[in-house]
Amino acid sequence: MLDNIIKNSMLYDFYGILLPHKQREIFSMYYHDNLSLGEIAEEYGLTRQGIHETIKRGENKLTDFESKLGLIEKYRREEGIVRKLTGEIDCLIREHKGDLSLTEKLVEIKDTMAGLNK
Amino acid sequence: MLDNIIKNSMLYDFYGILLPHKQREIFSMYYHDNLSLGEIAEEYGLTRQGIHETIKRGENKLTDFESKLGLIEKYRREEGIVRKLTGEIDCLIREHKGDLSLTEKLVEIKDTMAGLNK
Repeated sequence: MLDNIIKNSMLYDFYGILLPHKQREIFSMYYHDNLSLGEIAEEYGLTRQGIHETIKRGENKLTDFESKLGLIEKYRREEGIVRKLTGEIDCLIREHKGDLSLTEKLVEIKDTMAGLNK
Repeated sequence: MLDNIIKNSMLYDFYGILLPHKQREIFSMYYHDNLSLGEIAEEYGLTRQGIHETIKRGENKLTDFESKLGLIEKYRREEGIVRKLTGEIDCLIREHKGDLSLTEKLVEIKDTMAGLNK
């Protein structure tokens, strides 16, 4: 259940903007604002079942976008690379802490790296 | 004209998979394989005008995806960062070419970096 919430929240963060307005709003109320099906149904004057189906259709669309574009997979892969690079540079900084000119440049490289995968 | 071809080829590379099958095929024949409207029309038994409209609709969809997801903009931004990082590391390698242990680690960092923005 929690896995499903995390998965759908992430799908929404990456692809939510591609959903039609109302479907996006309902999806966000459910997965971001944690409103219940009943609460959302009341808000829209629709049935719980109707809201449930809208959310399901949204999930299917978002899952399809990920299967085609793979942005979440790419994000995770790059996150791993950036973490590895940061670790390697931290290691060099520790090993060369007596060399101020070198460590300053390594810190600068780490700062530049922080702009990646945003 | 050339700018338009490059722009649409790039849009197709990033988002083409989201177009319906036939529209994707026609778009690709025009922008990747450089077939003329007449040649594509003949292939499908359609008019040149029909093909032109299919391509135009495709362009609008792809442009809309970029305005929403901004993947090309992100790719270019990250490309700039990776180029800057590579330059900074090359500079350190040149400055410390007598220190084999350090330069080996810097080369390793450059290799890891090569996996970014793919």
